[in-house]
Amino acid sequence: MGSKRRLLLVSNSTLHGSGYLDHCEEQIKSFLGSQVKTVLFVPYALHDRDGYAKIARTKYESMGYKLDSIHEQPDPVAAVQAAEAVFIGGGNTFRLLKALYDNKIVSEIKKRVLEDGMPYIGSSAGTNVSTISISTTNDMPIVQPPTFQAIGLVPFNINPHFLDPDPNSTHQGETRETRIKQYHEEADTPPVLGLREGGILHVEGDTATLKGTTKARLFLKGKEPTEHDQGTDFSFLLDPKNY
Amino acid sequence: MGSKRRLLLVSNSTLHGSGYLDHCEEQIKSFLGSQVKTVLFVPYALHDRDGYAKIARTKYESMGYKLDSIHEQPDPVAAVQAAEAVFIGGGNTFRLLKALYDNKIVSEIKKRVLEDGMPYIGSSAGTNVSTISISTTNDMPIVQPPTFQAIGLVPFNINPHFLDPDPNSTHQGETRETRIKQYHEEADTPPVLGLREGGILHVEGDTATLKGTTKARLFLKGKEPTEHDQGTDFSFLLDPKNY
Ligand SMILES: [Ca+2]
Ligand SMILES: [Ca+2]
Repeated sequence: MGSKRRLLLVSNSTLHGSGYLDHCEEQIKSFLGSQVKTVLFVPYALHDRDGYAKIARTKYESMGYKLDSIHEQPDPVAAVQAAEAVFIGGGNTFRLLKALYDNKIVSEIKKRVLEDGMPYIGSSAGTNVSTISISTTNDMPIVQPPTFQAIGLVPFNINPHFLDPDPNSTHQGETRETRIKQYHEEADTPPVLGLREGGILHVEGDTATLKGTTKARLFLKGKEPTEHDQGTDFSFLLDPKNY
Repeated sequence: MGSKRRLLLVSNSTLHGSGYLDHCEEQIKSFLGSQVKTVLFVPYALHDRDGYAKIARTKYESMGYKLDSIHEQPDPVAAVQAAEAVFIGGGNTFRLLKALYDNKIVSEIKKRVLEDGMPYIGSSAGTNVSTISISTTNDMPIVQPPTFQAIGLVPFNINPHFLDPDPNSTHQGETRETRIKQYHEEADTPPVLGLREGGILHVEGDTATLKGTTKARLFLKGKEPTEHDQGTDFSFLLDPKNY
C-alpha cells in the first residue's frame, strides 16, 4: 500500500493582480473536497497572528470551509491531533519553523499527514517547512530555530517565489540560481524545486505533479538545471533512492 | 582611553562595471596604510577557497600588500594571533560563520580587533559576520552554524547589498525593507544599517562614518527608516545604550 500523504504546496499566497489565495482557490477546493469541513490554520510566520487569521478565515469561509487558527486553541498539539486538514501560511520561514518547534507540533503534523492522510496545504514559508529542511528559503534569519530540519513531508527542497535573473539588473548580490548552486556545493544536498510564483506542487501518496500557471526549474546536485511545464510528473523526487 | 577597534565594512566586493574591490581600493589603501605588509585573507564564504585566494591575492598584491590565505595555514588560530590585518571576503554568510566557528577563530578575531587594534576589512558576508549577528544577511541558510551570533565587533546589524524596492516589479516576495521590518518585530533587536552597493562603514575606535558612493538607509526598531548621505557620523550606533 502506498503512502497516504496528501499535499498542496503553493509557491506564493498572492499572485500579482489578484487577491489572497485567489490564484489557487480552485486547486484548494478540489484538494480539500466536500468531506473536510474545518481547516486548522497555522499563522506563526507573521507577527500579527490575529490579523493573519482574520484574512485566512475570510478566504476559507468564502470557499465554504470553517477555519480555526491554532494560536486561538488552548493546546496546539491537541489541535493538530484533532484537525481534519491543516493550512500553513507564508511569512518568515525562520519564525515559522521556530514556532512549530516551540509549540511541539513538528512531529505531530508529520505523523498526521503520513499516517492518517491529513491534507496539508502550504504556501510560501508553509511550503518551505513541509520539505526536508528550510535551507532554500529566501527569508532572513530573524530568529533562530533549533534546527534547519523541517517537517519532512517530502525528502527534497523547494524554493518558493523562484525568480529568474533580471537581465537589466546592475545589482551584484547573488542571483537565486547562484544561491541554489551554492547549496548544492555542500555535501549530501537533495534536489531543489524552484517553484515560480503561480506554481503548485500537488502530492498524492507517491505521485507528485506540477500544477498552476508557471513552469518550474529543477536543480539536481552536479547537473545543469532543467525547465518543466505544468503537468510534469515529479514523483521520482519523492524517493531519495532516485538521487 | 577609547576603543582600539579599526574596521572597514564594505557592502559588496564588486561594483557594477568595475573589477574586484576596485570601488573600495583607495579606502583599503588608506585604511591599511604602509605599516601593514601582509593581510590574512579568510576565504570561507566560497566553496572554492583556492580560486578565491588567488583572486584576492592578485588584487591585494596590486595594492602593494602580501596576502596569506588562512586555509593554507596549518593552524588557523595561530594565523589570526600572528596577523597584521584580516580581510574576510563575501559569499555565503552561513557557510562563512560556520567555518569561523569550526576553526575556532570567532573569539580570537574579536580579541585581536578589540584588544590589539588589528585592522579588519569585511566585504558582504565578511561585513555580516563582523556585526552582532547574521540575522540580516540576504543569503540562503545552506549550512547551519552553531549560532547566528557573530563576531560582534559592533553591537548592531548591517544589511549589505541593501536594495530599494523595484517599482515595476510584480514579484510578491517580501521587499528588503519588509524583511528588515520583520526582524524589528522581534524582541530586543538592534538597529540595522542598510548599506547599498558602493557603501562603506568606516569605524575608528568609537567613531563610525559612512563612506563610499551611495546613501545608506537606517532602520531603528519602532521608527520609520531614514536616509543618510556619505560622511554621516554613525558613532551613536557603536553604543547600545543609545538604543
Ligand atoms: Ca517569506
Ligand atoms: Ca552573499
